[in-house]
Amino acid sequence: MASLLRLPSLLAPAARPALLRGRYRCLHAGMAARVSASRGRAAPAAAATTGAAAPAPPETRGGDREGQVTPRSADFNAWYTDVIAAAELADYGPVRGTMVIRPYGYAIWEAIQDYLNVKFKETGHSNMYFPQFIPYSFIEKEASHVEGFSPELALVTIGGGKELEEKLVVRPTSETIVNHMFTKWIQSYRDLPLMINQWANVTRWEMRTKPFIRTLEFLWQEGHTAHATFEEAEKEAMQMIDVYTKFAYEQAAIPVIPGRKSRVETFAGANRTYTIEAMMGDRKALQAGTSHNLGQNFSRAFGTQFMDENGQIEHVWQTSWAISTRFVGGIIMTHGDDSGLMLPPRIAPIQVVIVPIWKKGDEKSAVMEAVASVQSTLKEAGIRVKVDDSELRTPGWKFNFYEMKGVPIRIEIGPRDVTNKSVVVSRRDVPGKQGKEFGVSMETSILVDHIKGRLEEIQESLLQKAIAFRDCNIVDVSSYGELKEAIAEGKWARGPWSASDADELKVKEETSATIRCFPFEQPEGDKKCFMTGNPAEEVAIFAKSY
Amino acid sequence: MASLLRLPSLLAPAARPALLRGRYRCLHAGMAARVSASRGRAAPAAAATTGAAAPAPPETRGGDREGQVTPRSADFNAWYTDVIAAAELADYGPVRGTMVIRPYGYAIWEAIQDYLNVKFKETGHSNMYFPQFIPYSFIEKEASHVEGFSPELALVTIGGGKELEEKLVVRPTSETIVNHMFTKWIQSYRDLPLMINQWANVTRWEMRTKPFIRTLEFLWQEGHTAHATFEEAEKEAMQMIDVYTKFAYEQAAIPVIPGRKSRVETFAGANRTYTIEAMMGDRKALQAGTSHNLGQNFSRAFGTQFMDENGQIEHVWQTSWAISTRFVGGIIMTHGDDSGLMLPPRIAPIQVVIVPIWKKGDEKSAVMEAVASVQSTLKEAGIRVKVDDSELRTPGWKFNFYEMKGVPIRIEIGPRDVTNKSVVVSRRDVPGKQGKEFGVSMETSILVDHIKGRLEEIQESLLQKAIAFRDCNIVDVSSYGELKEAIAEGKWARGPWSASDADELKVKEETSATIRCFPFEQPEGDKKCFMTGNPAEEVAIFAKSY
Repeated sequence: MASLLRLPSLLAPAARPALLRGRYRCLHAGMAARVSASRGRAAPAAAATTGAAAPAPPETRGGDREGQVTPRSADFNAWYTDVIAAAELADYGPVRGTMVIRPYGYAIWEAIQDYLNVKFKETGHSNMYFPQFIPYSFIEKEASHVEGFSPELALVTIGGGKELEEKLVVRPTSETIVNHMFTKWIQSYRDLPLMINQWANVTRWEMRTKPFIRTLEFLWQEGHTAHATFEEAEKEAMQMIDVYTKFAYEQAAIPVIPGRKSRVETFAGANRTYTIEAMMGDRKALQAGTSHNLGQNFSRAFGTQFMDENGQIEHVWQTSWAISTRFVGGIIMTHGDDSGLMLPPRIAPIQVVIVPIWKKGDEKSAVMEAVASVQSTLKEAGIRVKVDDSELRTPGWKFNFYEMKGVPIRIEIGPRDVTNKSVVVSRRDVPGKQGKEFGVSMETSILVDHIKGRLEEIQESLLQKAIAFRDCNIVDVSSYGELKEAIAEGKWARGPWSASDADELKVKEETSATIRCFPFEQPEGDKKCFMTGNPAEEVAIFAKSY
Repeated sequence: MASLLRLPSLLAPAARPALLRGRYRCLHAGMAARVSASRGRAAPAAAATTGAAAPAPPETRGGDREGQVTPRSADFNAWYTDVIAAAELADYGPVRGTMVIRPYGYAIWEAIQDYLNVKFKETGHSNMYFPQFIPYSFIEKEASHVEGFSPELALVTIGGGKELEEKLVVRPTSETIVNHMFTKWIQSYRDLPLMINQWANVTRWEMRTKPFIRTLEFLWQEGHTAHATFEEAEKEAMQMIDVYTKFAYEQAAIPVIPGRKSRVETFAGANRTYTIEAMMGDRKALQAGTSHNLGQNFSRAFGTQFMDENGQIEHVWQTSWAISTRFVGGIIMTHGDDSGLMLPPRIAPIQVVIVPIWKKGDEKSAVMEAVASVQSTLKEAGIRVKVDDSELRTPGWKFNFYEMKGVPIRIEIGPRDVTNKSVVVSRRDVPGKQGKEFGVSMETSILVDHIKGRLEEIQESLLQKAIAFRDCNIVDVSSYGELKEAIAEGKWARGPWSASDADELKVKEETSATIRCFPFEQPEGDKKCFMTGNPAEEVAIFAKSY
């Protein structure tokens, strides 16, 4: 693996022997369920590990009851859509399969954009913008591309009141139009590498949709690069999957597994697709970002050529890579619990919410003064802080509401706190009294350090919890039977694989699991394909997925 | 005028008597031409004031000759498209009327976004995202809206390989879908005001297109707000046109005239439209941003209601407001000259370009060391600086190229400069030797202050130059004959107006000029409509426009 990153190893035998050998009882399996139970809500301890609980009947769902959602363990899908509604992340658009991203959900996307935009520029890419209307003929130029995308296209056939001569495709992705333009801009090796990115909306006519995860229109960034050699393109494709991996770990606290897609799962038009695969709370896999080495497929289809230093005309070597609003869904499904969303501090639009508490009118001014002072102290320290001083809602309602919104830290300030010059600090990720600290000094130097420290702890704790959950739910298999068993239990199966595409499709048909990736991190030693018994170079990870 | 801003007055009699009375010889009329002429390129002094020069024959156009463009005075339109190509701002997309925004052009748009995004949030708005596909029936709900937009729609009729039951409109603007959603989200006065913004692409099937100015698809922000009262909506609409005005003056150095549109020119679906109107280098007007008081037009059409504090059900009062990539075209056409683009430092993607100059190999390392040191000095001071150390191009080529790109300041560093510990500083906006300073010390404290000071001077100078140009080309008229004369000379005409919509359309038919706005800033005293002789409340500005 050429990864630039140092990530917690999946494989280090001392640290996680259970993973490789799959013999030890998993210490963390029940964690999600225990957290739920400790909050005093219905969460059968078994459900979190079987993942197969039947959906709750509609009348027990909490989506419409203010501030409550279907328990995660009772019905993961209902929980997910309830949280999206209750935390005001998104709503359904009027056209089937479309989604309105509400301000709080959009702010999470903006946090993703802010981080990646800087990284893209640091790695030499410029933003630009391509039109979204693509002549239909373009899509047909690259054979596997048209095969992959034609069933999903939205077509504009009428413009300005007239039937168009050529149908226009509303972009499902931009490789074709990018290559059309690259062909105009690239003549010589001096024009290479050409490295660009665009933030845009894309449209894919999906049949089964799910907010954030799969919508008819979604937002993404798509990087497109052209290089003089295969090696440069390969290095770029790897570099970008590393940028995504680092983002997932360090910002979103999602311990994705980076790897290479199988031939069957490779992007329509790519030679190689790299992916980051995340394990959701129901243990289904989410493809959270991809980076493609396109080889010369599109440059041959569009005649994108350059003159090299020796005067030879060559086709350019290309990459493309993308992360979308789907990632927001990944964050919800990785960290959320029965109380709602749980956001990693680094991408939380609100890191600290302050709730003033007073009963009698004469308490109000002193409390509000302290609240304003704490707010400005934290704001000056660069912490994203919000005060909810609405008198239309009770403090209790606010506690639930900001827990639902996944705000990492809540600060309560009441009359007694004012007297003691202290505040009460509650962690979203540690339920009940355990997560509550009384008497934290309001003194600027103490409070700022305390809150910053807690935010770091929460960030790290969410990542470690997700790593533990992931690692407890990956089973090493050495036969097809073991794979079937693991998949039936809702887990991921990892085993040596060198069988055919047909065998891969057979596994999919029989178990609903697909190869998520050949992880970059591979165990050493000889391997035998669990399907055929033939020698295998690599282990693959199989799982059901979104 | 309820404007929050203090802007250079259009009307202060002491400062600019020529403007109100139109009697004095305009001191600045020939400025643009003189600047061109002093650079030693063909620019008949008369052309800039008549604006009516015939297009140059194709063979004299410079667009294809590297680093050269058609002289602005010879053919403004050819100059504009040449500059866009030569400065690598944009290119034509494969579908008629579409545009690819190239990295340098997109970086200008990003500078616009960065500024406005902060202002929108400071004034209480949140970003979000609405789907771009709108059911056709929505567009039909507001009568004047459908009349205004239906000729310009792009329609999706096929999705996922099937004919759709209802055609989908690719958004030309989002009032309809916004109201559909607002109706779901707004119940009570507690839900108001609702103030949001989205950055998005929009599609209008325009017949006559022009890069940045009018394209089939363009990028913009569209703000949408809902309020409990007419007054609040009016205040919001005014606040946002003030944000735009301030942006235009302080960032883009474009002295726009803010005002109210006539009934004829009001947005399809609005009660009032406020606008900022900019004078381009050919003296045509550009509508550079608008803010609409929508009244209850959309809330009645979509049933967007709320319960007020007394328990009464009312329709909400709304606004919408937008600035688009058209503004980039406005920047090009306000400041550019025969050498290409000229960017105001505050929105210039590159504020300073450093060109190393050396001939012999043994000079190189010392020069490059000084270049690196100056670069990091300026970068640390927060100045956007680029080094062009390519050995494939000569310094002379680079000088022309970065002038074409409108980079405000060029720094040259050669062997003699290294010896003297100094640099050569050239201003883009002052041509020839006059704009060149030799022997500016490399000493950090001196250099940083010097460059920052020059950037401020350039920013201010571009604004003052544009103000002078604008003010010399507005004529106060007191009869229709005077208006015709002013318009025929390519100028703007300002005069008292209280005539009918039919009269306004007659002026348009006979002169091609339209009412650009009733400016917020109005002369005092009694006025008589120059068309009818009836009393008039206000002066209007008439001009030909893009």
